[in-house]
Amino acid sequence: MTSSQPGLKIRCQQLNPVVGDIKGNTLAILDALDRASKDAIQLLVLPELVLCGYPPMDLLERDAFINDINNGIENIVKASQNTAIIFGTPLRNPIQSGRPLVNAALLVQNGNIVASRFKTLLPTYDVFDELRYFEPARDNTPVLWNGYNLGITICEDIWNVENERVYHTYDRDPSKDLKDLGAEIIINISASPFTHTKAESRRKMLRRHASELNLPFVYSNQCGANTDLIFDGDSMFVNPGGDIVSVAPMFDEGSIDATFNAGRFMANEALSKGLPTKDERSYRAIIRGIRDYFAKLKLDRKAVVGLSGGIDSAVVAALATEALGSEHVIGITMPSMFSSAGSVTDSEELARNLGIKIHQVPIKGIYTAFEHELSALFEDDQFGLAHENLQSRIRGSIIMAYSNKHGHLMLNTGNKSELAVGYCTLYGDMNGALAPISDLYKTEVYSLAHWLNEKYFMKEVIPQNTMLKEPSAELAPGQFDADSLPPYPILDSILYHYLEEAQTANDIIKSGFESLTVQKVLRLITQSEFKRKQSPPGLRLSPKAFGFGRRIPIVQGWKEF
Amino acid sequence: MTSSQPGLKIRCQQLNPVVGDIKGNTLAILDALDRASKDAIQLLVLPELVLCGYPPMDLLERDAFINDINNGIENIVKASQNTAIIFGTPLRNPIQSGRPLVNAALLVQNGNIVASRFKTLLPTYDVFDELRYFEPARDNTPVLWNGYNLGITICEDIWNVENERVYHTYDRDPSKDLKDLGAEIIINISASPFTHTKAESRRKMLRRHASELNLPFVYSNQCGANTDLIFDGDSMFVNPGGDIVSVAPMFDEGSIDATFNAGRFMANEALSKGLPTKDERSYRAIIRGIRDYFAKLKLDRKAVVGLSGGIDSAVVAALATEALGSEHVIGITMPSMFSSAGSVTDSEELARNLGIKIHQVPIKGIYTAFEHELSALFEDDQFGLAHENLQSRIRGSIIMAYSNKHGHLMLNTGNKSELAVGYCTLYGDMNGALAPISDLYKTEVYSLAHWLNEKYFMKEVIPQNTMLKEPSAELAPGQFDADSLPPYPILDSILYHYLEEAQTANDIIKSGFESLTVQKVLRLITQSEFKRKQSPPGLRLSPKAFGFGRRIPIVQGWKEF
Repeated sequence: MTSSQPGLKIRCQQLNPVVGDIKGNTLAILDALDRASKDAIQLLVLPELVLCGYPPMDLLERDAFINDINNGIENIVKASQNTAIIFGTPLRNPIQSGRPLVNAALLVQNGNIVASRFKTLLPTYDVFDELRYFEPARDNTPVLWNGYNLGITICEDIWNVENERVYHTYDRDPSKDLKDLGAEIIINISASPFTHTKAESRRKMLRRHASELNLPFVYSNQCGANTDLIFDGDSMFVNPGGDIVSVAPMFDEGSIDATFNAGRFMANEALSKGLPTKDERSYRAIIRGIRDYFAKLKLDRKAVVGLSGGIDSAVVAALATEALGSEHVIGITMPSMFSSAGSVTDSEELARNLGIKIHQVPIKGIYTAFEHELSALFEDDQFGLAHENLQSRIRGSIIMAYSNKHGHLMLNTGNKSELAVGYCTLYGDMNGALAPISDLYKTEVYSLAHWLNEKYFMKEVIPQNTMLKEPSAELAPGQFDADSLPPYPILDSILYHYLEEAQTANDIIKSGFESLTVQKVLRLITQSEFKRKQSPPGLRLSPKAFGFGRRIPIVQGWKEF
Repeated sequence: MTSSQPGLKIRCQQLNPVVGDIKGNTLAILDALDRASKDAIQLLVLPELVLCGYPPMDLLERDAFINDINNGIENIVKASQNTAIIFGTPLRNPIQSGRPLVNAALLVQNGNIVASRFKTLLPTYDVFDELRYFEPARDNTPVLWNGYNLGITICEDIWNVENERVYHTYDRDPSKDLKDLGAEIIINISASPFTHTKAESRRKMLRRHASELNLPFVYSNQCGANTDLIFDGDSMFVNPGGDIVSVAPMFDEGSIDATFNAGRFMANEALSKGLPTKDERSYRAIIRGIRDYFAKLKLDRKAVVGLSGGIDSAVVAALATEALGSEHVIGITMPSMFSSAGSVTDSEELARNLGIKIHQVPIKGIYTAFEHELSALFEDDQFGLAHENLQSRIRGSIIMAYSNKHGHLMLNTGNKSELAVGYCTLYGDMNGALAPISDLYKTEVYSLAHWLNEKYFMKEVIPQNTMLKEPSAELAPGQFDADSLPPYPILDSILYHYLEEAQTANDIIKSGFESLTVQKVLRLITQSEFKRKQSPPGLRLSPKAFGFGRRIPIVQGWKEF
């Protein structure tokens, strides 16, 4: 059928919507439509739920929110002219049964809703809660538009097999069903969040579909970050057989155009060369996460970071500076009687290298005042956990006082390894509005630090001394992480197998780790669940981050040993 | 068919399982089976998922956990003799499609699994995530056992209509389907958590079914608390037509027996007289919540509570004392330069009345030390939010130091009103392992305080001065809650309409509240989402508590105004 058609000009436009900002998102959609129209685009494809941003969560339960959504749809429909647009939005479920909403794709042109299609496969695992809100489509049929049979799918609909971790087995393949019903092109609108391995699994998935079904695929994905979830864009056109024709930028707004003719895409843009390395992707994801957290709060806020002289706070300060600009980041170094000299000098060197302001607030006087008042409560004056945590809480209170006084947002500097085993102080170093590296293991933080110095800055920005010193919380004399925890390469491997791969303790031991070490690590993970319950939101970089996507009871009696 | 049978002796046994403690729960089940057997019970009915406790959450995703479950099932099957038992457990989904598990009821007798039935309606709203784990039953048929056609259903299966808040419309009614297929008795095993209004809605629901279907109902519900969720038991036998024959205790373990003959139940026990008042139910729910939080952690822990002289901390201390015993509760009063005299004296009076130990730790010295060190950061010395929050954080750190030193768990004393509008300090008075009254509005806290003094203690335990003083955070000179917030009766009504009833702002205004007040309250709710993200788990008492059942994005742009 297409052979008799002139070429169809299609654009994938990755937008970065703000969750809930229906007015702002509508303006962005209308602006994209306007530009597409000027560029003689015939079909503009926008991401899933772009009108409300993803994930809207329980805002979807508010009637007034759905009314505002409907107004937004009306405005887009009214403004539409000859350029057709496909975009995602929640809709009230037209059937009076099941859940009250559907996750819809609307095809709009010349003041009309030409067609609507609903999502069939609703992810309900990890960070996804879609069956909490949406009724799945019972069927999906091709849309005959402008002489083309369009198969319109939404995100998970094409992830029927390749999910990075298998939580279920889908017995439907919406793309294949659409092909069987005559679709000649599959259009997928997505809000698919970043993980370290998502770009590869996404390519594998699209290539398999395009090859198995011998159909062309249009893939348009959300970009930008909403609180903890980072969307990496990476929209693309894929030809039958699996050739990727053109790819949009990762993480940033942008668009790609192609001409569809005789069942294939032709694009002017060259295919972007290869994928960035893992470290570069972590870097770009975190930058996007920090930047959007601040920008989307729509408050002109700066960031404040406690600098310990260690690797974690150095990396967070460097990333915050890249994300927000050096004039928007403040460091505070808070030496105690147990701090190494480097705690201050390395922090000062880092601040100089980054061009950020640094304040010094010693905590000894405050600590002494606490000790004095607490002595009556303590019975003995043996130094211990209470004294260690107290130092951390004094520091947390100092940063929060600065935050409250100046309106700055505190960035948390904790990594995934310490959050996993609870090697961190609740209401102390666990404070913060956002935790940029809470989904990077300690070994990954080191790797990123090396990449920053060597590949990104191409000079020593994170001080050599910070890179080389043995990790220490410096809360007690001569204290090192290695006294309490297995060496980080071992700890991180065990954590990865347990958390990301959901291996059993036995499997982990069989793969070569000491039984006692595995037992200790698993016990620490279980014991620190209550801390993570109260941790700040952390940027999700892996398929299994702490936070919303990992839901473990606090009071519970299961041990694998 | 039943008329030719001798009477069938049935027992509903409410157990209080520990989430994840498969070994302990198995022992409790075997113990119940043993007692039932001694009492010549023919059919013992236990709650939903009793083998793993409810809610097991993402423990269900661990293979080793499901293996342990299967061992538990095997042990129960092996031990079973002539007394048949129906109990709830997760099972691997026998069909290789969809989600990996089903939420099952097993009928076990004489060393065999006689029948298994799976849950059809899987709640996935508010605190419930069942479609995250379980594949729904495609059909459910009666089980012919011992000459009886049993219709076995699980929790939500019978809540197809009466849910306290409508999140969806179920188009199936499993009880009716079972009756149509010949069931002569409906057995429902549940893990249905408490809310203020649940006992009424439960009775209404069971009566309607029993009356509409003209069938007898056996209802066996979990009791006890698992972290934030409190299960109120309240198991019962209901005769065709809707007469409640016998009811088990609320909140506590216990059982009820009945003889089933000629399609009706006969019981020795009288129907428990009426339901407790709302205040008494709150009291019993919170006591159960605190007690089980401590008991199920299996650590011999005491509770420590910051006492301000105000109503919230007084009520929490009184409840903790009732739950744990006076020797297991410690109060700490921490006066500042802004504290009223009553802050200490009222706290001391309360502690005397409760028989609990109280420590006094003044915070002025520590505050002065902070002020001194912070002066360089503050530019001006104007008193403001930073100084107010600092006092709260000093107090939070003192209590946590005490907690770390002695191993006590800190109880949070915040109420739902202040948590809603953010009238509380993150890392300060928001600290705590558990928040016993975070789902009670301020007006409800007063009501409970009056009930405690007047109906429960029948004397002045919570001091009169605490009851009568005007609410104040005492963080600044002459500060009262009413300076920043609408009067509590108005605030709480707006919050109730907005949170519990999900009314739109316009509806709330139309019902008689000032537009500016509603606007302010809704703005405060939205602005304080980030605080609630890091709040301790709170006992859920209403159909819409803050916490796991209310999922609002932190960075988002939607305002109703």
